[in-house]
Amino acid sequence: QRPKTGELLYGRNAVIEGLRGRRTPRSLYLAEGAERQERIANLLAEAQRRRLPVKRLKPPALEQLAPNVNHQGVLLEVGGYPYVQLDELLAGANGRPLVVLDHIQDVQNFGTLIRTADATGAAGLIIPDRRGVSVTPAVVNSSAGAVEHVAVARTPNLARAVDEAKEAGYWVVGLAAEPQAEPIFRADIPTPALLLIGSEGGGIGPSLLKHCDLLVRLPMLGNVESLNAAVAGSVALYELLRRRLEAD
Amino acid sequence: QRPKTGELLYGRNAVIEGLRGRRTPRSLYLAEGAERQERIANLLAEAQRRRLPVKRLKPPALEQLAPNVNHQGVLLEVGGYPYVQLDELLAGANGRPLVVLDHIQDVQNFGTLIRTADATGAAGLIIPDRRGVSVTPAVVNSSAGAVEHVAVARTPNLARAVDEAKEAGYWVVGLAAEPQAEPIFRADIPTPALLLIGSEGGGIGPSLLKHCDLLVRLPMLGNVESLNAAVAGSVALYELLRRRLEAD
Repeated sequence: QRPKTGELLYGRNAVIEGLRGRRTPRSLYLAEGAERQERIANLLAEAQRRRLPVKRLKPPALEQLAPNVNHQGVLLEVGGYPYVQLDELLAGANGRPLVVLDHIQDVQNFGTLIRTADATGAAGLIIPDRRGVSVTPAVVNSSAGAVEHVAVARTPNLARAVDEAKEAGYWVVGLAAEPQAEPIFRADIPTPALLLIGSEGGGIGPSLLKHCDLLVRLPMLGNVESLNAAVAGSVALYELLRRRLEAD
Repeated sequence: QRPKTGELLYGRNAVIEGLRGRRTPRSLYLAEGAERQERIANLLAEAQRRRLPVKRLKPPALEQLAPNVNHQGVLLEVGGYPYVQLDELLAGANGRPLVVLDHIQDVQNFGTLIRTADATGAAGLIIPDRRGVSVTPAVVNSSAGAVEHVAVARTPNLARAVDEAKEAGYWVVGLAAEPQAEPIFRADIPTPALLLIGSEGGGIGPSLLKHCDLLVRLPMLGNVESLNAAVAGSVALYELLRRRLEAD
């Protein structure tokens, strides 16, 4: 009964967006009775309209397919995550912000940043293909399904990807905690902007720091020195959006 | 060996801020050898300077005291969390923003919002004393210890607390997802502001909505309808800070 290939998305939002997104859905798994919830009934109707195989399982069988996660009674078997090529991403960006994640480690932070990138109209994200999180079903879940609509490119060499974005006209803005960085609300941020967000513990790596045209930081008025990485990145993305809206 | 009263804070940041904050620390528990890390060595020096009992434990014994958490080799036994009285909070607020959390359920979101409230110089937070999270050691941890410095008031009646803040001169700004709310970057937000943040699933409850002087929302340009509650609240808190910095 366990699907042999592909991935199992879990949770209502992840499954809904998985159906709406760019992957080919293969099967829907429902806990018996789950369609008594309106959003799951809608999901089921959509799956049936698309002639997708629907399997109804007793809760323990569902649990066995997706152990130890909050599946909310619904799973979707899909193909692997459709990463985009970096050159496609750059070609289609049209001056919208790009986001580079320098080895984010935490699944929740990664998902949250994808969700905010989607909400703020970013063109997409660039991540390293090793030593950081990739787009797993847990990330789909923590992004509330947003990653199914957002372009994500993986690259073996972040520094080279940043250089390619520069060649495509982007300015590289590093989000840093260092005091020498400019306070973001006062900074003159050139556009189009590529926002570079560092990892939870280490910030932006030294080799990438050298590629930044500008370092910005969030003002910190409190007792604690840092913010959650996903929050800091999200505030910066909304500041970029605020400026774009103001310029319109 | 298990402490009979008080709470056990866990994790480096939580313990460091627990020592610096407003609670009376009782004992420090260290995993043997943990002081090889510089930050834990500093912590130990501070504890010794303050003549705090220090107990060194083998990892399994530490695990038993704080099971299933990422304690990073360090625990601090402290008294209960020192909530402040609402009238104290209002009296000391001095026009800085106030934050009301309407039944936030998720420990991580609560901790993150406290951390951002600290970073943005908010006067403090007001939470309900039932049906929402309270300041547990898990919240201290997820706030990176910030809650040890931030004023948190609990109240049996959020609506009444909001009214008291109004009487003290505050304007009540609800962060909402409804389309009729004003886009936050264009809204005329009066000060001093009390920012009202709803729960993850339900937003602001209907009885509290009626108390709002203004509803604001974050612009959403993407495919997914909502943001993480802690991210939305954090972006709004930084927008309030941006305006205060601009006014200076």
